[in-house]
Amino acid sequence: MGIFGIYGEEQGDVASVTYYGLYALQHRGQESAGIAVNDDGVFSIHKGAGLVGDVFCHETLASLGRGSMAIGHTRYGTLGTRGTINAEPLAVNHIKGRLALATDGCLVNSGPLRRELELGGMIFHTSSDAEIISGAIIKERLDAPSIEEALKRAMRRFEGGYAIVLMSPSKIVAARDMNGIHTLVYGRRQDGRFVVASETSALDAVGAEPIRELMPGEIIVFTDGEARSITDNCATAPERLCIFEYIYTARPDSAIAGVSVQEARRRAGELLAKAHPVEADVVVGVPDSGLDAALGYSEASGIPYKIGLIKNKYIGRTFIAPGQDNREDKVRIKLNPIAAAVKGKRVVLVDDSIVRGTTSARIVKLLRAAGATEVHLRSSAPKFLNPCYYGTDIDSREMLIACNYTTDEIAKIVGADTLGFLELSDVEKIAEGTSAGGFCKACFDGNYPTPPMQKYVSKYDTKKTESEA
Amino acid sequence: MGIFGIYGEEQGDVASVTYYGLYALQHRGQESAGIAVNDDGVFSIHKGAGLVGDVFCHETLASLGRGSMAIGHTRYGTLGTRGTINAEPLAVNHIKGRLALATDGCLVNSGPLRRELELGGMIFHTSSDAEIISGAIIKERLDAPSIEEALKRAMRRFEGGYAIVLMSPSKIVAARDMNGIHTLVYGRRQDGRFVVASETSALDAVGAEPIRELMPGEIIVFTDGEARSITDNCATAPERLCIFEYIYTARPDSAIAGVSVQEARRRAGELLAKAHPVEADVVVGVPDSGLDAALGYSEASGIPYKIGLIKNKYIGRTFIAPGQDNREDKVRIKLNPIAAAVKGKRVVLVDDSIVRGTTSARIVKLLRAAGATEVHLRSSAPKFLNPCYYGTDIDSREMLIACNYTTDEIAKIVGADTLGFLELSDVEKIAEGTSAGGFCKACFDGNYPTPPMQKYVSKYDTKKTESEA
Amino acid sequence: MGIFGIYGEEQGDVASVTYYGLYALQHRGQESAGIAVNDDGVFSIHKGAGLVGDVFCHETLASLGRGSMAIGHTRYGTLGTRGTINAEPLAVNHIKGRLALATDGCLVNSGPLRRELELGGMIFHTSSDAEIISGAIIKERLDAPSIEEALKRAMRRFEGGYAIVLMSPSKIVAARDMNGIHTLVYGRRQDGRFVVASETSALDAVGAEPIRELMPGEIIVFTDGEARSITDNCATAPERLCIFEYIYTARPDSAIAGVSVQEARRRAGELLAKAHPVEADVVVGVPDSGLDAALGYSEASGIPYKIGLIKNKYIGRTFIAPGQDNREDKVRIKLNPIAAAVKGKRVVLVDDSIVRGTTSARIVKLLRAAGATEVHLRSSAPKFLNPCYYGTDIDSREMLIACNYTTDEIAKIVGADTLGFLELSDVEKIAEGTSAGGFCKACFDGNYPTPPMQKYVSKYDTKKTESEA
Amino acid sequence: MGIFGIYGEEQGDVASVTYYGLYALQHRGQESAGIAVNDDGVFSIHKGAGLVGDVFCHETLASLGRGSMAIGHTRYGTLGTRGTINAEPLAVNHIKGRLALATDGCLVNSGPLRRELELGGMIFHTSSDAEIISGAIIKERLDAPSIEEALKRAMRRFEGGYAIVLMSPSKIVAARDMNGIHTLVYGRRQDGRFVVASETSALDAVGAEPIRELMPGEIIVFTDGEARSITDNCATAPERLCIFEYIYTARPDSAIAGVSVQEARRRAGELLAKAHPVEADVVVGVPDSGLDAALGYSEASGIPYKIGLIKNKYIGRTFIAPGQDNREDKVRIKLNPIAAAVKGKRVVLVDDSIVRGTTSARIVKLLRAAGATEVHLRSSAPKFLNPCYYGTDIDSREMLIACNYTTDEIAKIVGADTLGFLELSDVEKIAEGTSAGGFCKACFDGNYPTPPMQKYVSKYDTKKTESEA
Repeated sequence: MGIFGIYGEEQGDVASVTYYGLYALQHRGQESAGIAVNDDGVFSIHKGAGLVGDVFCHETLASLGRGSMAIGHTRYGTLGTRGTINAEPLAVNHIKGRLALATDGCLVNSGPLRRELELGGMIFHTSSDAEIISGAIIKERLDAPSIEEALKRAMRRFEGGYAIVLMSPSKIVAARDMNGIHTLVYGRRQDGRFVVASETSALDAVGAEPIRELMPGEIIVFTDGEARSITDNCATAPERLCIFEYIYTARPDSAIAGVSVQEARRRAGELLAKAHPVEADVVVGVPDSGLDAALGYSEASGIPYKIGLIKNKYIGRTFIAPGQDNREDKVRIKLNPIAAAVKGKRVVLVDDSIVRGTTSARIVKLLRAAGATEVHLRSSAPKFLNPCYYGTDIDSREMLIACNYTTDEIAKIVGADTLGFLELSDVEKIAEGTSAGGFCKACFDGNYPTPPMQKYVSKYDTKKTESEA
Repeated sequence: MGIFGIYGEEQGDVASVTYYGLYALQHRGQESAGIAVNDDGVFSIHKGAGLVGDVFCHETLASLGRGSMAIGHTRYGTLGTRGTINAEPLAVNHIKGRLALATDGCLVNSGPLRRELELGGMIFHTSSDAEIISGAIIKERLDAPSIEEALKRAMRRFEGGYAIVLMSPSKIVAARDMNGIHTLVYGRRQDGRFVVASETSALDAVGAEPIRELMPGEIIVFTDGEARSITDNCATAPERLCIFEYIYTARPDSAIAGVSVQEARRRAGELLAKAHPVEADVVVGVPDSGLDAALGYSEASGIPYKIGLIKNKYIGRTFIAPGQDNREDKVRIKLNPIAAAVKGKRVVLVDDSIVRGTTSARIVKLLRAAGATEVHLRSSAPKFLNPCYYGTDIDSREMLIACNYTTDEIAKIVGADTLGFLELSDVEKIAEGTSAGGFCKACFDGNYPTPPMQKYVSKYDTKKTESEA
Repeated sequence: MGIFGIYGEEQGDVASVTYYGLYALQHRGQESAGIAVNDDGVFSIHKGAGLVGDVFCHETLASLGRGSMAIGHTRYGTLGTRGTINAEPLAVNHIKGRLALATDGCLVNSGPLRRELELGGMIFHTSSDAEIISGAIIKERLDAPSIEEALKRAMRRFEGGYAIVLMSPSKIVAARDMNGIHTLVYGRRQDGRFVVASETSALDAVGAEPIRELMPGEIIVFTDGEARSITDNCATAPERLCIFEYIYTARPDSAIAGVSVQEARRRAGELLAKAHPVEADVVVGVPDSGLDAALGYSEASGIPYKIGLIKNKYIGRTFIAPGQDNREDKVRIKLNPIAAAVKGKRVVLVDDSIVRGTTSARIVKLLRAAGATEVHLRSSAPKFLNPCYYGTDIDSREMLIACNYTTDEIAKIVGADTLGFLELSDVEKIAEGTSAGGFCKACFDGNYPTPPMQKYVSKYDTKKTESEA
Repeated sequence: MGIFGIYGEEQGDVASVTYYGLYALQHRGQESAGIAVNDDGVFSIHKGAGLVGDVFCHETLASLGRGSMAIGHTRYGTLGTRGTINAEPLAVNHIKGRLALATDGCLVNSGPLRRELELGGMIFHTSSDAEIISGAIIKERLDAPSIEEALKRAMRRFEGGYAIVLMSPSKIVAARDMNGIHTLVYGRRQDGRFVVASETSALDAVGAEPIRELMPGEIIVFTDGEARSITDNCATAPERLCIFEYIYTARPDSAIAGVSVQEARRRAGELLAKAHPVEADVVVGVPDSGLDAALGYSEASGIPYKIGLIKNKYIGRTFIAPGQDNREDKVRIKLNPIAAAVKGKRVVLVDDSIVRGTTSARIVKLLRAAGATEVHLRSSAPKFLNPCYYGTDIDSREMLIACNYTTDEIAKIVGADTLGFLELSDVEKIAEGTSAGGFCKACFDGNYPTPPMQKYVSKYDTKKTESEA
């Protein structure tokens, strides 16, 4: 999910700036979007299901008015949640005032936490972690002298990977989980406003110069015109930055822990070329996230890079895939091979990862139909062998092809002549020069930075449907 | 507002029945509508802004599925609340399960109650009474052995006029405030299902035979195929049924406390004719709620009844009243006089009430323009002199014309030849034969059944905008 | 269908005036609506499927801009036509300029006319009469010196009942069929603008004083600040005004041929009471169009009038009638009897007409269920025995109950104790004092004023679907 | 604009196939879309404003039903036309049956043609060329023995660049203008259905193997299970295929006249590298249409190719660009430079063309802000010096920067260190190996294949607004 915050002392059109920021973070979540604006302690909120452009029009954006600060959110659907009920920012009233928050990530101990809060009489309207997070913070707030102190105390109860931006009547407060699994960076615009966001590309989008990433466990309070760091929770756990941000999640024009995402992907291609060389005529990437690795493979191998697959940029939410007949039409309309680029050629096909193998199988088939004589598939991610508990939607083990088949078997299943994955031992090398103290690669190696997941489902918790019109 | 519940032991299309019930209660609230269905403890909810027909289509109704019970709500906008955020049923999760509730009415002590709950760490997402009511019930539920026991305890904390229908995984529970200010009636269908609703017309609409009204303070629990009454809170306060239900709020085809609403209105017309007779040629009612009183006036006075004003039935939510020029077009498009009925005639014009006087003034003008030689205005309600704190949207004193002018002055302002209000001493007579122990007439006589209003607004509570798409 | 035109020499907000006029004519057609504005020869048009309020919002109305004249239309779906394709005003370009027209009615010779035009090379986009009418006018325009002369010549080719309002760059031209089957009236506002409309109530709605109805065959040209009459086509056929306008089509607050529609309905009730008296306790009308006749029956018979059925005013386009189970819920939600008014009573039930008998049967059943001891049904229209070819949607003979059963049989079918229809010999008496030279009563007596219908369907004319988004 | 047709003898889900085809042709027109299905002579049509995905949903697509053939259209807004009024397919009824047609292109003699048709009494509902084309065909159809013969005769009256697909009750007929300015290709699916479309990529999208392009002036009739060619109009004019199809209009995965569009663009890059070499560190293309030329430049120059600009793929119709302040945010949100790729580098920036220069100026500025030390701009099209009259929306001369400034001046204006355009003498070389007999390069060299434009506007033709809801 994408989170965004902007803080200043003067009134301004912070809603529009947040709108731009959310457009830059749209790739991190397409299920819902929302913005909360703070006009001298009075909050205006608009959120809804769909893309930023579906949720906001001139009228709804204007209805948010001006303010000195704002936060925004783009949601990625993880659980079978529909509609606007889980859209963030989540705004709540409590005894000491009003709070809005936007979160990225998942707690592994949300079950026990919720149970404890319910035992204290708390009511939950949703089953989202955001509501549990807000409940835990507000419970601490009853005794804590400030919202940041409440957050600090609550974070000690949270196990998992998360980033939080919250807005009180007079402050924006941002925090990153103790392991630094999730990303969060802040910067400043020429007009003096501070901006905090999931990725540097969102800072670029609103003209903010990056200052630095938050440290694992760090809280930054934007208030009284300043950014104040609270480091009490820092260094309480080893840093474990999610390596998959480089491989897939983040935009190529973002930089994480000092390393360009594009450059990391290019390097993954180089490493693949070294580990899994092949004699071929052309290197083709699967658009969009396989292109950089394909360029890297080409550079390292000397095999020419070609644009061999065209993605139909109009296939979006409204595409309905009619006709029961042949599945192939549906693949071809999304991705069309360029015969001129691959006909009669031995093709190295570079994709960002292989999950179930079905998409790869279809693309290999398309290339062969377009005249490719050989197709050598390369995955710029290692084999997926474990689920992620921190918010990345990776299939359970039964669905992961690499859990059930050997590399040779997978090659046969997807129809590739040869197949190579980025080596697990190479994966950290893609982030060479990183300032991160360590990486979470649990989806590849099963080494989780936190205790196991304890999901708690109350007896009647399962909701079939909850929708709002 | 309109509330509705249906309970049975078998699965069925309870969503459709509730939909019909809400259509029959639409006049009690047009701001939002919602239905919650209970399928063996699993709740499906859909709600939204607008009329029942705006919120529900084939698809959304089908999405609710089948179930053994359901509740529904039509909301009347009292506070400047917009959008779907305050739509009911309100569904919450708590430590002992899940709860959905639909409420009609207002608490006068919601401020202190909310403050107390917030001090216990409770979070509020809205500023509606429904959320405070649910919070108070769930707080009691921590110790209470059942939801009905929790409701019973919580009701002792509530001051105000209200009716509640709540749904737990296995029960529908209905309750009426201790003063019996708000109405609630239950009945049974031939298929054995119990139905509870704000008015008998909603029972008619779904083929349920009325059994009886709930007593003031009574709780009825529908569970295990039966309706069980809890009377511990009964007779703790004098009955004070809202008399305005007869005059304006309820449908003429409903009966309250054993008295037909239409008959009550007809009697108001009779009483008016006796108290304020006049020599005239024709009696005309302002559609729709003045028609029955006009018939009563005609019967008692012997002056012929005519349909003298035609209401344009297409003027609804989508009518935009364009053109800055003359206000008269806008009145005339809504209400057109029938010249044939009033030309050259002395007209007795009967309206349900006179609030600000502006509408009356326009109608009098229309009739004169259509050729009426005299217009004698009669109000089938007494003078409005006090605000209502129990959910009826009566203007504050500054806006009430009767607070600021004498009857003669008002006649002059609205342009009527003579003017007569239903006498305060006559108002209870309209409900002759009632089973109610007493009436609330506070809007007319200032005699409130509960302590004064204590609204509590936390420092940052004022929300400018909160919308969902 | 409803047609409207407004003409002046100055620029003004004629779109808004037309919008009000269409709201007043909404009862004449709910399928589509449209407005065309003429700003110094430049036409702006907006039209669409649905009610006036669905088609026009602030934005679309504003998009029409200001102008000196405008025309508007509300369409009543006669053929299985859907969507906006048949919406009017129809605007066309031809060699001598631009033309927009709005029509009410049907030609019986549209088939041969269209065939003739097609043989001349004309293309048709729809199968509506309006397009045939415009084609015939424009064909004449090639030789005629003016648009009104072209219309005059074309009218001589038209057989049927129609009213037309057309707009050229500099004129509004209105015309009525030679038999005067369809209505058209014009008047003037205080600001000097002329207004022409299907009914006087639309003139009232925009503050125009009626001048007079157009004569059968008359053309009135509004240009150069004046209304000029062309009577060359007048008195070429006997006047045959549609009597059903009084009984059902028109609004009760309109007057036609000098007779109030309400008064005509009241008289129908009187005549019914004389022809079909009965001993009873109460007279109840079926809302809305049976109320006036019920009052008339009450006055003539001395039996008290009561409001005994309440129509749910929220049942509109969006009502979806869910649930397969019992049809009775669906009747009851639309119309609820008031038990207090009918219980233990002998009821005279007055409806405007009986077509298939199914609705009557349901209402009789409802009243009996509410306790009526006897139900005496009276129809304020004579028996429907013939289809209408001029635009009123009367079923074909197989569906008309009166074509297939005697009065006694029908009474049995609908469950009434007695049944009486307005006598055919009485029907013209309802318009006593009329200025009309004669009436079309073909639906009752089969005496059609024009030659029989000749519908022509080209081989491939049947369109399954034609929709626009 | 994009046109598509599918023909077979059996019934089938041709609507869905056409939907896929239109998605593949969406880049050729985003203003409106439509599909007409022919079910044994009965036509079903749906069309509307917006993208294919906006116009068609499951319901509207299903409403088209099954059929043996269908045509489709995506419209590119050329004139200030709004709404659905000009959406195609255009369906008309005429004396010999029914006709639907979809067109791509513009006639230069539409004015005189329309005037002539109007003099014959024809009515026009729009000002589109499609309606003039249909009128001319139907006029010929009165005497011609078949629709293809009528089309053949009408084509002799048409001057301009166009491609037409029309559907009669029993045939699909496709035609290409005598100069072959516009493209049209046909092929066949494995199920035997013929498919005709503007580009081969649309054939790929529906699994059709290309057979060949239509010859200039050729008509192909799909009927009785066969494709029959009519060549009477062929070779009546020199072939002049639009060269801009290769540069910009067509998809890179299409092939035209035997030459891959991607390959043509790559070659343009090569030719640019030879004509305008420069010492630099990296070649960057402007996405999406500059990428292939950038790769070609890189290959020919040996300077490494990099992805240096990321296009935000979520910026679509719903993006509203709020905030008046700085234009730069609006550029940056659409296109973000990757600092890692360009920082400290001398960049060759390759774009497909330079029209007004404003976009180029902003991109150059972005790259410099991201740290590029030099920016050398290369345009893979020659200088635009003349308007296009055949349907490509090229600005008038006043707006074309190359009409008003020298290359050096333009370089200065856009802020580039050096600037190079594809040489006019090189432009045909991009299509090396083409089967086309010649090219239209009028926008570059002013050498038009047809007589000058004669637009005819009738006195009252200018429509301000024509919209449908």
